[in-house]
Amino acid sequence: MSDTTYTPAEIQELTAFAERLADAAGKAILPYFRGEGSLADNKAQTGFDPVTIADKAAERAIREIIDAERPDDAIMGEEYGEKSGTSGWTWYLDPIDGTRAFISGLPVWTTLIGLVRDNKSIVGVIDQSYLKERYVGTPSGSYMIDSEGEKRNLKTRPCKKLTDAILATTDYFIFTHPERGAFEHLRATAKLTRYGLDAYAYARVAAGTMDMVAEAGLQPYDVAALIPVIENAGGVVTDWCGRPATLGGQIVAAANQEILDEALISLRRSARAFDCG
Amino acid sequence: MSDTTYTPAEIQELTAFAERLADAAGKAILPYFRGEGSLADNKAQTGFDPVTIADKAAERAIREIIDAERPDDAIMGEEYGEKSGTSGWTWYLDPIDGTRAFISGLPVWTTLIGLVRDNKSIVGVIDQSYLKERYVGTPSGSYMIDSEGEKRNLKTRPCKKLTDAILATTDYFIFTHPERGAFEHLRATAKLTRYGLDAYAYARVAAGTMDMVAEAGLQPYDVAALIPVIENAGGVVTDWCGRPATLGGQIVAAANQEILDEALISLRRSARAFDCG
Repeated sequence: MSDTTYTPAEIQELTAFAERLADAAGKAILPYFRGEGSLADNKAQTGFDPVTIADKAAERAIREIIDAERPDDAIMGEEYGEKSGTSGWTWYLDPIDGTRAFISGLPVWTTLIGLVRDNKSIVGVIDQSYLKERYVGTPSGSYMIDSEGEKRNLKTRPCKKLTDAILATTDYFIFTHPERGAFEHLRATAKLTRYGLDAYAYARVAAGTMDMVAEAGLQPYDVAALIPVIENAGGVVTDWCGRPATLGGQIVAAANQEILDEALISLRRSARAFDCG
Repeated sequence: MSDTTYTPAEIQELTAFAERLADAAGKAILPYFRGEGSLADNKAQTGFDPVTIADKAAERAIREIIDAERPDDAIMGEEYGEKSGTSGWTWYLDPIDGTRAFISGLPVWTTLIGLVRDNKSIVGVIDQSYLKERYVGTPSGSYMIDSEGEKRNLKTRPCKKLTDAILATTDYFIFTHPERGAFEHLRATAKLTRYGLDAYAYARVAAGTMDMVAEAGLQPYDVAALIPVIENAGGVVTDWCGRPATLGGQIVAAANQEILDEALISLRRSARAFDCG
């Protein structure tokens, strides 16, 4: 598909709309973070689960706005599934990515909003409403709104060797055994490795303080928001074969092609495809 | 030593002083976090290391205040070593605990300030100046100052079974092999495990969103600040034998004695002491 399916003005409007969706999600979620909602004390007794409630409340808040203002767009949400549309645009929604961080009271969960056209992710928002940090990717560049409310352009850093790279993955123990083998080589080569960050790690790659994230078993709504943020900050996102990332599965994001090529030597061996082609 | 070596009024004064030290450290550190200091761009070329510079600047800022206002107190700092004193009080300082998080641009590093008398830690501050979160332990209770500037009492939660517990450790791969064996049992039993949090995990145990931290190879200035925060929030801190924690080595902190007892079944087998008895 060519770029002529949308104009810069339309992208600007859609990006502003995506940011409003993130605002609504944050407002729905924050009362439940760290049990600050009124019901949190009952959790142990009643099985009350603040993350599920917050997740659903945030996705409902987002969908209400889309339904009201852009009723022809399709939606693919983690909690409430698919809604078809006619506009050609689909919103991929993960209201709380990083539910384990959320229930641990750690401020590294995020709200993910990805806007997809013809299976290509065009606009992405990674929003951390507790930190008041928002990372946005658009065809004209990636930017963040920092905790002081300032807008800054995002740029991955020129880390040229895997031995200098800061690596992240969410959970070593959810990898399959072949995946662990590949990851182990990356971990042993990289300068240091961080765990448990989910999408927040991709945001920090775009912002130039980390260099690579390798993960497996991702869902479409996990990935759609990440690709535009990384790519429009100068980074690369592929599957473990090095092919353009699809919306899910085994994903590697890197600050640049040089360290991605180094990582793919290991990752290709454990790629799910029998033949990386 | 009995409590009569200090009065509640003196503790109150010392706690306020400790908070001022944390203020000074935060002010020294923040310009370097995420390369926001003016020199950060030169890092790759010159070997400029923002974490070392920030670490040293923060410890100097703290020591200047102690030297000027409490010259008779002793100091034990990570960067500038020991200074003897005559007052009976020793300040244990780790200006940036979690340097790997710091260089990764992740807001889970902390400034640790512990006040020790007769080898017992009396007051502790765990400060995260980017998040504007401060966790303070004193003999009259633990509290936090949250990101909105509100003061809240800290209380560990009544998680009675290890299978319900949220566990943390900083780095699985720095454990010795026997330590990994013990930790593996804890990890497989706990509800979920988080990594890479350093002292911030102890703060969240005190705040009741996590339940246990098990670590090894700690330094005195890592531990001194943590003990008062956890214990005065209702938690327990011991070595891997279950004995009162010394200032360093193998440490386990828990929300309560019940889950600690469960964990010690595993940890005792890998305790450094030949005989826990």
